[in-house]
Amino acid sequence: MRLVTYRRGRARPRVGAMVGEVVLDLAALAAALAREAGAARARPFPRTMLELIAGGTPALERAAAAVEHGRRLLEAHGVEGLVERGLGAPAGRVRLESPIPRPPRNVFCLGRNYREHAAERGAEAPAHPVFFTKVPEAVLPPGGDIVYHACTRELDYEVELAVVIGAGGRDIPAARALRHVFGYTIVNDVTARDLQKRHGQWFKGKSLDTFCPMGPVLVTADEIPDPQTLAITLRVNGETRQASHTSKMIFPVAECIAVLSEGLTLLPGDVIATGTPEGVGAATGRLLRVGDRVEAEIERIGVLANRVVAP
Amino acid sequence: MRLVTYRRGRARPRVGAMVGEVVLDLAALAAALAREAGAARARPFPRTMLELIAGGTPALERAAAAVEHGRRLLEAHGVEGLVERGLGAPAGRVRLESPIPRPPRNVFCLGRNYREHAAERGAEAPAHPVFFTKVPEAVLPPGGDIVYHACTRELDYEVELAVVIGAGGRDIPAARALRHVFGYTIVNDVTARDLQKRHGQWFKGKSLDTFCPMGPVLVTADEIPDPQTLAITLRVNGETRQASHTSKMIFPVAECIAVLSEGLTLLPGDVIATGTPEGVGAATGRLLRVGDRVEAEIERIGVLANRVVAP
Repeated sequence: MRLVTYRRGRARPRVGAMVGEVVLDLAALAAALAREAGAARARPFPRTMLELIAGGTPALERAAAAVEHGRRLLEAHGVEGLVERGLGAPAGRVRLESPIPRPPRNVFCLGRNYREHAAERGAEAPAHPVFFTKVPEAVLPPGGDIVYHACTRELDYEVELAVVIGAGGRDIPAARALRHVFGYTIVNDVTARDLQKRHGQWFKGKSLDTFCPMGPVLVTADEIPDPQTLAITLRVNGETRQASHTSKMIFPVAECIAVLSEGLTLLPGDVIATGTPEGVGAATGRLLRVGDRVEAEIERIGVLANRVVAP
Repeated sequence: MRLVTYRRGRARPRVGAMVGEVVLDLAALAAALAREAGAARARPFPRTMLELIAGGTPALERAAAAVEHGRRLLEAHGVEGLVERGLGAPAGRVRLESPIPRPPRNVFCLGRNYREHAAERGAEAPAHPVFFTKVPEAVLPPGGDIVYHACTRELDYEVELAVVIGAGGRDIPAARALRHVFGYTIVNDVTARDLQKRHGQWFKGKSLDTFCPMGPVLVTADEIPDPQTLAITLRVNGETRQASHTSKMIFPVAECIAVLSEGLTLLPGDVIATGTPEGVGAATGRLLRVGDRVEAEIERIGVLANRVVAP
């Protein structure tokens, strides 16, 4: 499933699934299914992506059944039929939020997890994964504006495969780690290079408001059985700046999870951004400027597009 | 006020205030006050410390009135009178949680914010504050057990003055920063030195489960008008290992807040641990061992005691 969090007008965000260019309303479809089955009162469907993730396999199965029902209705009645019944909408008529608009705690991030990127930054490939975090309020929806804050003069991009944890756990062995993955999305690990350097540790330069574009969809793990098989690219104003492949990660997803979870309990809904490949602006001398349009793309997930704006 | 979060038995945590060796139940006292004033229905009192903080000045004033009422009753009827009315309890009969048992996002921390500590770690005093984070689930109550996880061989302590943000904001000038402080507590920034080094960035070695003892009380800012005037010490099994003074911070609290908030919106309930003075185990060669009792003490706040246990 290609799950989304979306809004129509000023209503509160809803959990949906993209089928082609249509957004299915999963709660409405689940309720419709329950009525068809003659249920006196439908169990409430998870209201947020975090609730859906915390609901485990039963919640995921209800979501899958809702999507299947939506597909049938779409075939039988077209998108207008779905709209009439209040069960979905054309993608162009809704506004996407990030799949998890506000993660439950800071986003976990890896640094220097692609050899060529470590090299372009003048660093050795690390012998152990390098972890830091970004505040959850930095999460920015697809299409949202990346603010070029006045406190930086060196704004940069970093496309990254982001892992969303399903079942939590501590001391998770690498061999079982992918079973703890709920799904995958894209993060642009926007960075103020001058602050990253000035403050010694990277956190501050990585955590300014709007510095964590995330989305557009959360692809469930069943659709990406091996996360090391994905082309990963980034374009600025249509020009390719990063182009690599997740097979080139130094520490693959399973190992990132295993090492991060040593002595540290991972929780449902945790987001782990797994590092960026070579081609960042700090290495090529082509940093971001106000007005730039940044597109982060990962195979089988989609394109996360954001524009840089003045503060 | 000396605010606490506490439990009696299996009931949910409540917000209280310490007066001597008595814990006042602020919600119960506020309700009693409202009844005395003839209010038909009392406004609900904040149920958690985070709600109290988010409530701003009005909530703080209600808390102060409740404490004042509790003091009067205590003088008139003694602690047994309070207990009979369900308005308080002897401190020995409740269990303290951390004042904020689960901060809204990762705890912000400063590294190398005391000159002598930077020197003992072989580092220059930094020219700019160094920020990193600890996961909020690492918060451990007073008296809780610090786990000596199997993944580390170098467990260390760090006593730190922790600032709790009241009114949020971005780009807060240093001259106004202390107005954004709700109060102060103590954090023991427990650290796995081997992991801190192995993973390049400090986050992982700082964020294992139980690695953020916090408490015992949250002293409101009106009682500590100048946070740079406090003796700060740490003892292991009764022996002093750290003994310094918050006047020796390289970046005083106001500057920490000002720099951290550049381009990064601080929120009510955010916790900022402001760095540790010299005397850590990694410098003296005396790291923590299973069974050790660690007492972190800061003048006018109190003593935060925890024991180290095997996993």
